Amino acid sequence: MKTRAAVAWKAGAPLSIETVDLQGPKFGEVLVEIKATGICHTDYYTLSGADPEGIFPAILGHEGAGIVVDVGPGVTSLQKGDHVIPLYTPECRRCKYCLSRKTNLCQLIRGTQGQGLMPDASSRFSLDGKPIFHYMGTSTFSNYTVVPEIALAKIRKDAPFDKVCYIGCGVTTGIGAVLFTAKVEVGANVVVFGLGGIGLNVIQGAKMVGADKIIGVDINPARQEMARKFGMTHFINPKEVDNVVETIVQLTDGGADYSFECIGNTKVMRQALECTHKGWGRSIIIGVAEAGAEISTRPFQLVTGRKWEGSAFGGARGRTDVPKIVDWYMEGKINIDDLITHTMPLEDINKGFDLMKSGESIRGVVLF
Amino acid sequence: MKTRAAVAWKAGAPLSIETVDLQGPKFGEVLVEIKATGICHTDYYTLSGADPEGIFPAILGHEGAGIVVDVGPGVTSLQKGDHVIPLYTPECRRCKYCLSRKTNLCQLIRGTQGQGLMPDASSRFSLDGKPIFHYMGTSTFSNYTVVPEIALAKIRKDAPFDKVCYIGCGVTTGIGAVLFTAKVEVGANVVVFGLGGIGLNVIQGAKMVGADKIIGVDINPARQEMARKFGMTHFINPKEVDNVVETIVQLTDGGADYSFECIGNTKVMRQALECTHKGWGRSIIIGVAEAGAEISTRPFQLVTGRKWEGSAFGGARGRTDVPKIVDWYMEGKINIDDLITHTMPLEDINKGFDLMKSGESIRGVVLF
Repeated sequence: MKTRAAVAWKAGAPLSIETVDLQGPKFGEVLVEIKATGICHTDYYTLSGADPEGIFPAILGHEGAGIVVDVGPGVTSLQKGDHVIPLYTPECRRCKYCLSRKTNLCQLIRGTQGQGLMPDASSRFSLDGKPIFHYMGTSTFSNYTVVPEIALAKIRKDAPFDKVCYIGCGVTTGIGAVLFTAKVEVGANVVVFGLGGIGLNVIQGAKMVGADKIIGVDINPARQEMARKFGMTHFINPKEVDNVVETIVQLTDGGADYSFECIGNTKVMRQALECTHKGWGRSIIIGVAEAGAEISTRPFQLVTGRKWEGSAFGGARGRTDVPKIVDWYMEGKINIDDLITHTMPLEDINKGFDLMKSGESIRGVVLF
Repeated sequence: MKTRAAVAWKAGAPLSIETVDLQGPKFGEVLVEIKATGICHTDYYTLSGADPEGIFPAILGHEGAGIVVDVGPGVTSLQKGDHVIPLYTPECRRCKYCLSRKTNLCQLIRGTQGQGLMPDASSRFSLDGKPIFHYMGTSTFSNYTVVPEIALAKIRKDAPFDKVCYIGCGVTTGIGAVLFTAKVEVGANVVVFGLGGIGLNVIQGAKMVGADKIIGVDINPARQEMARKFGMTHFINPKEVDNVVETIVQLTDGGADYSFECIGNTKVMRQALECTHKGWGRSIIIGVAEAGAEISTRPFQLVTGRKWEGSAFGGARGRTDVPKIVDWYMEGKINIDDLITHTMPLEDINKGFDLMKSGESIRGVVLF
């Protein structure tokens, strides 16, 4: 079949809207009509050429929602008409990782996914007979895409695609880091470094579980208002205090119980660790640092009880937890609407990237 | 009263055996007759002058066992004749830390203890009217010492002082890191960096909880035999392999579930983190690094699920857990006898330091 898609022909160039060829689903695969897809910094990171694992030409996009239109042989958990969110972190429920009960990082198809291929080591996308690579196993910048069954969360049919697509990455990454990775408890003091989309979702996650102080840290004071709306109780502008760590330690009577780094800056990651409470503080890295950058601290910070950790896809098991988060949205427990600041047709996807880079959008969504 | 004690007059000099003056216990304090005390690397670290918080003159020693001979006013949990182990990490059961249920690092008397003083900010030791400082709140290199009630674990009376004194530091630090900090579960793969006294206790802790592979790493092959006796299943000499991390990852099919750094070398701390399993590996720093040294890694190590942590006094709550460990020794569940390689009278304490520095002793114990 044919499908319209935004193709990344090479690093550093704008996406190009093309009509490409798409093979139907093979064993264990599903054909999905994408109805909406968010534009995430990670797409830009790869498109820019900074991602050392970036492969071109590719169809980017990993934050989509849509409808199953066909299933390949062997598919048992989904059928035509099901509403789904593609998962760049799949959940096979049978690999060592899924069975460990300790991580959400399913590795069953990690190898081929990293090579831009389906699990049988080939691509479904092509143009003029030349293959175009998949991206993160999802390629949601295409009206139709093929995704492995284990990489699709089945969601309720009354959920609006143009909102819940954001659960495919940003919402889950932020809220999940609080709920599934850190398991923040009621009454805890939480610090959030970086008040972009991820940071705002961390904030609403912290509010959801009844955190006490929810302290936001950002050099952009314009981000205060939205963050307060989502539950932030205190704001610190690092440009306005002598010492961010000391300010947080004083504000929390000894340090934060949990901190979240949502920027990808290794210096901030150190502050995020060191502002946590002696004895039990836990610092969760969410942001992706530039290639080669390293984090450092004195080991004394850890020996005196702080823990340094990370979170990917919010520690969420995609097929198990993503449908729950969709429910929470539909029940009004979380706010996504205010985070989707811009929508656009596929033809304007490059404008969506520009809005993100400039900081004008929190989340831009492409509607098919 | 008078007591014999080994006094550290200044950094870098041998200890001097003196008869010093000791004031009786004040409010909330207890006079203890020390019957035996281990000589630990931390005593040497301070004596050498490398410890930036070292204070002189002082009576060192923090790994003792003895008998209560007098109690000050307000003491309710101990009486004359009780057998006790002094605790450099006390357990007041009422400070923010004790009540957090998340840490063993009681802070009630941390300030004065760090200044070499009892909680009322004065010293009980003196000579010719000039005060001599306490050390770690315990000063067990003295036949008689005064210790706060909250810094004494009451133990069973049939336990031999010359063995269970080692529970006052090394045994608890090693075994506790496995049981109380990491909570290693049955079937886990464990790696131990450094096969000195702490490492051997980590090994027997790992064996105690039913770990699967227990891998020891040390550049000294002579340490293999004792480590195997304590439960080590595999030995790696970093001098004999190309890449320690890669060797461990292969041996454990992806990485260790838990690693323990028992040396205090920041480069080894990085290896200890990076040899753990993607998704859930936890690396526990026990060793004390030299002042100013820093640990580093790529944040990707944490974002993909590894956790970097530390352990002090094995995560043990002194008054609650130390008596249990004494029971385990008496019940034959743990081996201390083979670790006490040398005993000596107080007069020979400097020889004990020499045996430790040369690596000839695992643990030397002074008998009063």
